[in-house]
Amino acid sequence: MLKEKGSHREKLSGVFAPITTPFDEEGNLLLDKLASNIEKLNQSRLRGYLVLGTNGEFKSLSEAERRRVLETVMKASSRDKVVMAGTGHESTVLSIANTKEAGAMGVHFASLIAPSFFAKKMTDQVLSRHFRLIADASPVPVLLYNNPEVAVLTFSTGLIGEVSRHPNIVGMKDTSKGNFASYLLAADPDFNLLAGSANFFFEALVMGGVGGVLSIANFAPEACCRVYDLWRAGKLEEARREQYRLMTLNQKVSGRYGVAGVKAAMDLAGFYGGPPRSPLLPLTPEEKKRLRDDLSASGFLSADSP
Amino acid sequence: MLKEKGSHREKLSGVFAPITTPFDEEGNLLLDKLASNIEKLNQSRLRGYLVLGTNGEFKSLSEAERRRVLETVMKASSRDKVVMAGTGHESTVLSIANTKEAGAMGVHFASLIAPSFFAKKMTDQVLSRHFRLIADASPVPVLLYNNPEVAVLTFSTGLIGEVSRHPNIVGMKDTSKGNFASYLLAADPDFNLLAGSANFFFEALVMGGVGGVLSIANFAPEACCRVYDLWRAGKLEEARREQYRLMTLNQKVSGRYGVAGVKAAMDLAGFYGGPPRSPLLPLTPEEKKRLRDDLSASGFLSADSP
Amino acid sequence: MLKEKGSHREKLSGVFAPITTPFDEEGNLLLDKLASNIEKLNQSRLRGYLVLGTNGEFKSLSEAERRRVLETVMKASSRDKVVMAGTGHESTVLSIANTKEAGAMGVHFASLIAPSFFAKKMTDQVLSRHFRLIADASPVPVLLYNNPEVAVLTFSTGLIGEVSRHPNIVGMKDTSKGNFASYLLAADPDFNLLAGSANFFFEALVMGGVGGVLSIANFAPEACCRVYDLWRAGKLEEARREQYRLMTLNQKVSGRYGVAGVKAAMDLAGFYGGPPRSPLLPLTPEEKKRLRDDLSASGFLSADSP
Amino acid sequence: MLKEKGSHREKLSGVFAPITTPFDEEGNLLLDKLASNIEKLNQSRLRGYLVLGTNGEFKSLSEAERRRVLETVMKASSRDKVVMAGTGHESTVLSIANTKEAGAMGVHFASLIAPSFFAKKMTDQVLSRHFRLIADASPVPVLLYNNPEVAVLTFSTGLIGEVSRHPNIVGMKDTSKGNFASYLLAADPDFNLLAGSANFFFEALVMGGVGGVLSIANFAPEACCRVYDLWRAGKLEEARREQYRLMTLNQKVSGRYGVAGVKAAMDLAGFYGGPPRSPLLPLTPEEKKRLRDDLSASGFLSADSP
Repeated sequence: MLKEKGSHREKLSGVFAPITTPFDEEGNLLLDKLASNIEKLNQSRLRGYLVLGTNGEFKSLSEAERRRVLETVMKASSRDKVVMAGTGHESTVLSIANTKEAGAMGVHFASLIAPSFFAKKMTDQVLSRHFRLIADASPVPVLLYNNPEVAVLTFSTGLIGEVSRHPNIVGMKDTSKGNFASYLLAADPDFNLLAGSANFFFEALVMGGVGGVLSIANFAPEACCRVYDLWRAGKLEEARREQYRLMTLNQKVSGRYGVAGVKAAMDLAGFYGGPPRSPLLPLTPEEKKRLRDDLSASGFLSADSP
Repeated sequence: MLKEKGSHREKLSGVFAPITTPFDEEGNLLLDKLASNIEKLNQSRLRGYLVLGTNGEFKSLSEAERRRVLETVMKASSRDKVVMAGTGHESTVLSIANTKEAGAMGVHFASLIAPSFFAKKMTDQVLSRHFRLIADASPVPVLLYNNPEVAVLTFSTGLIGEVSRHPNIVGMKDTSKGNFASYLLAADPDFNLLAGSANFFFEALVMGGVGGVLSIANFAPEACCRVYDLWRAGKLEEARREQYRLMTLNQKVSGRYGVAGVKAAMDLAGFYGGPPRSPLLPLTPEEKKRLRDDLSASGFLSADSP
Repeated sequence: MLKEKGSHREKLSGVFAPITTPFDEEGNLLLDKLASNIEKLNQSRLRGYLVLGTNGEFKSLSEAERRRVLETVMKASSRDKVVMAGTGHESTVLSIANTKEAGAMGVHFASLIAPSFFAKKMTDQVLSRHFRLIADASPVPVLLYNNPEVAVLTFSTGLIGEVSRHPNIVGMKDTSKGNFASYLLAADPDFNLLAGSANFFFEALVMGGVGGVLSIANFAPEACCRVYDLWRAGKLEEARREQYRLMTLNQKVSGRYGVAGVKAAMDLAGFYGGPPRSPLLPLTPEEKKRLRDDLSASGFLSADSP
Repeated sequence: MLKEKGSHREKLSGVFAPITTPFDEEGNLLLDKLASNIEKLNQSRLRGYLVLGTNGEFKSLSEAERRRVLETVMKASSRDKVVMAGTGHESTVLSIANTKEAGAMGVHFASLIAPSFFAKKMTDQVLSRHFRLIADASPVPVLLYNNPEVAVLTFSTGLIGEVSRHPNIVGMKDTSKGNFASYLLAADPDFNLLAGSANFFFEALVMGGVGGVLSIANFAPEACCRVYDLWRAGKLEEARREQYRLMTLNQKVSGRYGVAGVKAAMDLAGFYGGPPRSPLLPLTPEEKKRLRDDLSASGFLSADSP
């Protein structure tokens, strides 16, 4: 019933935007803004979207809000875009429930962050069992999500070597620093690795990664796709040059301000960014001004105006 | 409208059990077991309960399950017991909603864990604003919950110095290592500090703490109360001796196995512990046997049989 | 040949100053200043001195300089003072050489910091073997020095439980946060534990510690001795109050500025502090002014003027 | 007087072996073995050597031993090899003394590890001042050495951006994970970056690094040079394949066993490895057997037999 893992490669190859969740000043969800952002991104060469991820502030949403966000994206997303949805929960049983629900709503892949509240107890054995139980029950192929900055723990290469052999665990988004090639070396050859940060997108491709889930793709999708396309075209030197431009931009947005910066940049680029949900704070007027200057200097925005 | 902070001291003085959440082997909630545990603990000299905390695996529950757990405890708890409920959420607005709901259900205190998914952004300024907004909106007095092991970040003494002056932030449960006296020194004199671990319960009392929220109070409430009573009676030497016994026990249960160990010890002590929710694993048969031997050797259980 | 471990208790009971190493502005060693500091401290009720420790900036000294510092202190120290000398080195063989040399120079105890350059390889087994080899070869009893802030690693209670049984490993200075009682619980009953920070000196005594090696004893020896004496006299309430005063002072000196702050406070208290050795920087004029105000407000200095 | 920084590029381009220090079973220095190792490596295509680095266990040597090691290498090294020597010390003044002495002995570059005993005080300002003072006084060009695993702290990109402009700070060996491209982006264009680990040697070259200081070059110099040569020849696909082979080997030697593993592999490859200095332990017989099997399977050794 489950298709060959390698068969997912085409769907996972390219650039994905980890969609932000629009709020108003009081923290109310703005689903129409979400829909219009997606409609604009539909025009780009992005391969698809990751919904309810870190940049989507999924941990700051209620269960009902998560459902509505996913519904909205599924409706707004064009047929050619691939949708991944974050469905991981601290408990196995609720991760399964989320995954089944997302599958029923038509997402192409479920993305599983590690449970980390009891991080010290999350041995390889415990994590392997958790992910396998979800993958066994999932109606859609599953991607792991490795992000030590928010999920505390870093997957071991031993864990990835093992779970990458599961027929329904077909890839991983890796946001950790300096481990990408080690995961590729440890994993099943058909396992699909995507860079989770623009900081090492190009290196990830060079080493064998299939794509990237890049926060700045929310407001500069073409800049991200350009690195990917140049690499695919064998233009190494140009791709590297673009990578350094991308990295510079990424440091000034995500690196400096996190989700709040991505949202502010979206506002500047013609999307709806808006404020993050409290306790996260929006950029100050000074920070916004500095960001505007940085973005202008980068020269990216014009090429990316939706 | 808000009472004097010092007036809460009596309610917070003594030992609290951070109630575990009973599940069956499939991870289904067993509310009747929860009720009967509470009824047994009602017979003890515990000052009260903390519901939906770390030992309650609150992060592994759905929103509806949390509600039912709280309802069950409020109904089962005897009138003389004080109930604190964990109401913290990654977002301010949902923390407020949880806190209002818990207040309406009759809890005496709301306990707020720090939002930590975006830990790097949680500056003192951000955390202060978050906690103040919740405290302003809360119908009940608020306690902070400092637990770096699960919530990643450690509150600075500067933060505690500041927020402890808020009229509705009346105390803190501190589970961090080696900071208790620093918080007492920094805080408003009326701020109430409770030890969040049996490992330093006695030292906390010596330095000016008012009580403790101790995982082993779930199955050995009298042993915990004994340290407290000896200290209050001025029997320093005996209190210290009891503290070392408590610490030994705590290391062999919570220290070694976490929530799973507390639950296994509850089973041995005549309560319903049951398994933790997956991905946490229950103790293996070998671990259970070792625990049984450790508890027998400790001599605590007989005195605590409910 | 080796005396009973318990027999060392008297020598280790009380307050020790971890002697600073005086330099001029160019970083040259000032041995006469060192001698005169010791002569002043000889008048205090301090139990003794720790030479070549963290506050002695021993890692910033050459081998020849360390030798001269130790010679100077041995000559200047009065007969009633106990001298501990830091002799730990990254290699076992050089730790042994240092320890023998210090023993031949008449120090009463050798203090061994953990080798930590290859911290990941420093398992309990490796550390136990290292400390045992040194203790076997040492002409004087040996103390361990647990300081995660500078030596990266924290001794496990298992390690301490084991090595505390060695006849020539007679105690430990513990600077780590929140582990003191755990070490006491794990260690041989005759093992002598000293607090390595004024932040928890009183708690350490309450739990069974025999003394403290306190940076602020370099300039406020009487304030430190007062906590010790009040505790010994059974005046718990007064001792606690003094402890909080000590902690306040300690936070404003060592906590805020480290060795540079201790030295600046020594200058203000009539000792020679001088600058730390580069790359450490001395306090700025603004910091010195703030420190002077803090010390004046503390009321400690007058009572401690040498 | 100082040559242009870019002019050092040729000397720094290629593969360097971080030379190990040979000891006998009692920890005595074996300088003849050191000399013969160097003589064998002189036959390889290595660009040169790093003496007194982490793999040289420099922290486990006495001052006199370090001097003799350096003398031995300078005498044994052939004229075409470039020699870097570790001269960093916890104090600025002793770092300068070491650097001058090494310069007088004819080393081409001094390599400076960060002082880290007082890691919390090592702000960018403090580190910049420290490195600049040394570079100002040094008779030879200076390289920084960034290794968070042993030196605790990680250089900020801001620091590197700044000090890379100093005319006598000409490059850096970076062993940290995932920062290489960020340093390149921040640094002066003439600054020379070398990978400090085989784990990311190829990626480092792709991003603009000039070479690598690779522990496995001690016993498999040709395997390391092959990656470099293939990359220089524009054979991307083959270079990547070789990189993965190198990484596999590196994980099984340095990754698993550290210096002890490198030495054991040297023994297997016809060099003198011998035991590391205590407290580091040599490989057990079982580990040696496993290593022999791993090396045989790798197919590297035959091509590298000296």
